Amino acid sequence: MERHRALIDAHVDRWKHALPENGLYAPMAYLLDLPAKRVRPVLVMMGCELFGGKAEDVLDEALGIELFHNFTLMHDDIMDEAPLRRGHATVHAKWNTNTAILSGDAMLVKAYQLMGKRADVLELFSRYALQVCEGQQFDMDYEQRRDVHIDEYVEMIRLKTAVLLSCALQVGAACAGAPREQQVHIGSYGEHLGLAFQLRDDLLDAFGDPGKVGKQVGGDLRAGKKTYLLIRGLELSLAAGRHELREELAKAPTDRNVPRMLNVLEELGVRTETEAEVHKHDAQAMAALAALNVPVERKAALTQLAATLLQRTS
Amino acid sequence: MERHRALIDAHVDRWKHALPENGLYAPMAYLLDLPAKRVRPVLVMMGCELFGGKAEDVLDEALGIELFHNFTLMHDDIMDEAPLRRGHATVHAKWNTNTAILSGDAMLVKAYQLMGKRADVLELFSRYALQVCEGQQFDMDYEQRRDVHIDEYVEMIRLKTAVLLSCALQVGAACAGAPREQQVHIGSYGEHLGLAFQLRDDLLDAFGDPGKVGKQVGGDLRAGKKTYLLIRGLELSLAAGRHELREELAKAPTDRNVPRMLNVLEELGVRTETEAEVHKHDAQAMAALAALNVPVERKAALTQLAATLLQRTS
Repeated sequence: MERHRALIDAHVDRWKHALPENGLYAPMAYLLDLPAKRVRPVLVMMGCELFGGKAEDVLDEALGIELFHNFTLMHDDIMDEAPLRRGHATVHAKWNTNTAILSGDAMLVKAYQLMGKRADVLELFSRYALQVCEGQQFDMDYEQRRDVHIDEYVEMIRLKTAVLLSCALQVGAACAGAPREQQVHIGSYGEHLGLAFQLRDDLLDAFGDPGKVGKQVGGDLRAGKKTYLLIRGLELSLAAGRHELREELAKAPTDRNVPRMLNVLEELGVRTETEAEVHKHDAQAMAALAALNVPVERKAALTQLAATLLQRTS
Repeated sequence: MERHRALIDAHVDRWKHALPENGLYAPMAYLLDLPAKRVRPVLVMMGCELFGGKAEDVLDEALGIELFHNFTLMHDDIMDEAPLRRGHATVHAKWNTNTAILSGDAMLVKAYQLMGKRADVLELFSRYALQVCEGQQFDMDYEQRRDVHIDEYVEMIRLKTAVLLSCALQVGAACAGAPREQQVHIGSYGEHLGLAFQLRDDLLDAFGDPGKVGKQVGGDLRAGKKTYLLIRGLELSLAAGRHELREELAKAPTDRNVPRMLNVLEELGVRTETEAEVHKHDAQAMAALAALNVPVERKAALTQLAATLLQRTS
């Protein structure tokens, strides 16, 4: 993964330095300069190498996926009214909302300029780009609703997060000439990996080790954020006739008793259930990887990636 | 043009009815339902027919350009804080800003889905899409500046308005297999036609017949909008030591004496000069049309279009 990181970082740098001197492009360079793991472009390269292609040959597509991802960050931060991203001012906070809208638009066009070399890649990219937009729409809709079902939440994170990982791998595979049904398997791996990762993120926010998570535990619960834990916790509370979560949510965020909320989630089995969901998607990702018709040594990088992202010990 | 209008209207209808039932797509259908001349998709069809192609074969590309245009309207209306478009609520006013951002984003993706059949069309489209974004950026920058030069204004309207007309014609021509240098000529026709049209629009707002223009004359001047007339009027006022325009602009919009402003523009020769600019670009459009290596009868539609848009009597 370090080799892939170095390749994409160098390509991002080349791209940034070729940008015109214009207010439209400065926010793109700024956002790309924030600390980032570059998971999506690395997946494009890994998807390509899995089918015998060379990482160096899909740098444009890898960058295109990263630009798309950053375009969604720029616009989502406006919609979420987020002042900070990874400790730095968001684009709309540093410049203004109009600049963030317009620079984001142009960033999507720039992404397309990189994705257009192959018709099949272009088709994949547009299809999944729409799904990412649909996921953000669901997310905004759900903020207004009190009755979001757990399946709807999972569908939302699938669209908002998992499908772009799936898309990245499929783009890489397509560029290496992988047959369509093999692209489906690698896409499935990416989707389940993404779901496992996101659900694990929800878990860590509530039950993680504060020292390792790097932020105050229970922040999502305090904010009343509709994560898997809270939605499922409210469902099970209703069935069990328990009122702690609703009582805490009725308070102002700063007054919420987070340990009490965590205790309910633990007692209702929400923590265990969420862990089981993470393992289910992790297992489905591994099954998709197993189903791939490529030499087993080529799968090692993706097995390792899943282990790293999910911090499994085996 | 009526035949082309009917073709694109039917294609827009088909496209709208195939949209998923989802909050993301409803604003697209709403915006497409507002009264519109469909100039850009008609230009795609005309560009195609000019080189011997069939209008029916470029309906997707025509629709793609129209979707792109509507995407820019959706986002520009947010940036301009415009409550109304053609007498109807803008998308962000009817729904909200977040919906207008996100639905606009998805509309751009939908546009790309239609533009991706040919690599040369895709390349053209992305190149001009970026120019349109750059034009909007200049427009926003200029709002903050007091020293916009007339050449900068013309460059802004070229990017914001004229290049998409140019792009539409080139896309149509490319689909009909026109040689590259012929695409450049038809693009030049579109660009100059767009400039002539926009400058004439500025003129009509100030000096048009109120009965024919359909709105109060002088609205741009009252609002202090930086049109060709006002920018050039301020330049010439400075050179001539005249203070009427600055005096009026220092007042609140409702207190401005529009007849006094019009009088200055007339006396400084701004009206005559703007008319000369319109004629210059009109002549350049016609020269580009003349340079095209196609049978003269195929040019008739574009000659007629220029006459209609510019309401020339000859």
